[in-house]
Amino acid sequence: MPKDRYFEDYIPGRVFEYGETRVDEPDIIDFARRFDPQDMHVDPDAARRGRFGGLIASGWHTGAIMMRLLADNFLPKGASLASPGIDELRWLHPVRPGDVLRVRVSVLEATPSRSKSDRGMVRTLIEVLNQDGDVVMTLKPMNIIARRSDT
Amino acid sequence: MPKDRYFEDYIPGRVFEYGETRVDEPDIIDFARRFDPQDMHVDPDAARRGRFGGLIASGWHTGAIMMRLLADNFLPKGASLASPGIDELRWLHPVRPGDVLRVRVSVLEATPSRSKSDRGMVRTLIEVLNQDGDVVMTLKPMNIIARRSDT
Repeated sequence: MPKDRYFEDYIPGRVFEYGETRVDEPDIIDFARRFDPQDMHVDPDAARRGRFGGLIASGWHTGAIMMRLLADNFLPKGASLASPGIDELRWLHPVRPGDVLRVRVSVLEATPSRSKSDRGMVRTLIEVLNQDGDVVMTLKPMNIIARRSDT
Repeated sequence: MPKDRYFEDYIPGRVFEYGETRVDEPDIIDFARRFDPQDMHVDPDAARRGRFGGLIASGWHTGAIMMRLLADNFLPKGASLASPGIDELRWLHPVRPGDVLRVRVSVLEATPSRSKSDRGMVRTLIEVLNQDGDVVMTLKPMNIIARRSDT
């Protein structure tokens, strides 16, 4: 991937991997106290007695960590215009304290806009993996990205 | 909704509204510095010159705020077992500093598990609205919820 990225650099079939990010217990609890204060995410004792046998990260926390890896490594700095949304987000495996996460991004489609010649839509499959290779989360986001030649 | 909620309380066709939560500029910048440090989310000056004409919240921040409203008001305390994922998440309208958000939750489906008699899957449509009634985000999450009579 070039440093200065545009729509033309997102070629279907290409696969990129980025990471790693370690997730510790205080990160999990801090995020969840603000945004997802369920026992399994904020209370280590209750979580130990619960169905996951210990604290697990909020799915929104895992998504936010993935977003950081994407913003730092994959999306263009200036040419990332917006995201209309995400299809088929799945949380497949719990994220636990001490896990080290990375992302695998596969470019699925890159479609020039019909109405606006300066941009296109990129669809990707993102897999978030832990240190054991377990896929903890998958999603198919859409990103609107500026074209290199703005005519 | 009863205070102590179980699968049986999620009846298709029911609609609930919860909120409000105000989103201020420091909240937007603080979240985005950690998880989504794109100019449109962290740099008010660059954002003013950008395509949204000002700072907007990261979509993951809007999702996390929605999760908090759900955890506080809609999901059961003990009987919320897990979420397998989300379908059709869409970011439809920017969230700006000073916006006051609320959620509208419509129960779409409630399906008892075939393999595990103690639980079922609830599918909802969630709409996040701002103070002007604009729908800023929609999504269709799935939640696994325990049944009241654990036979």
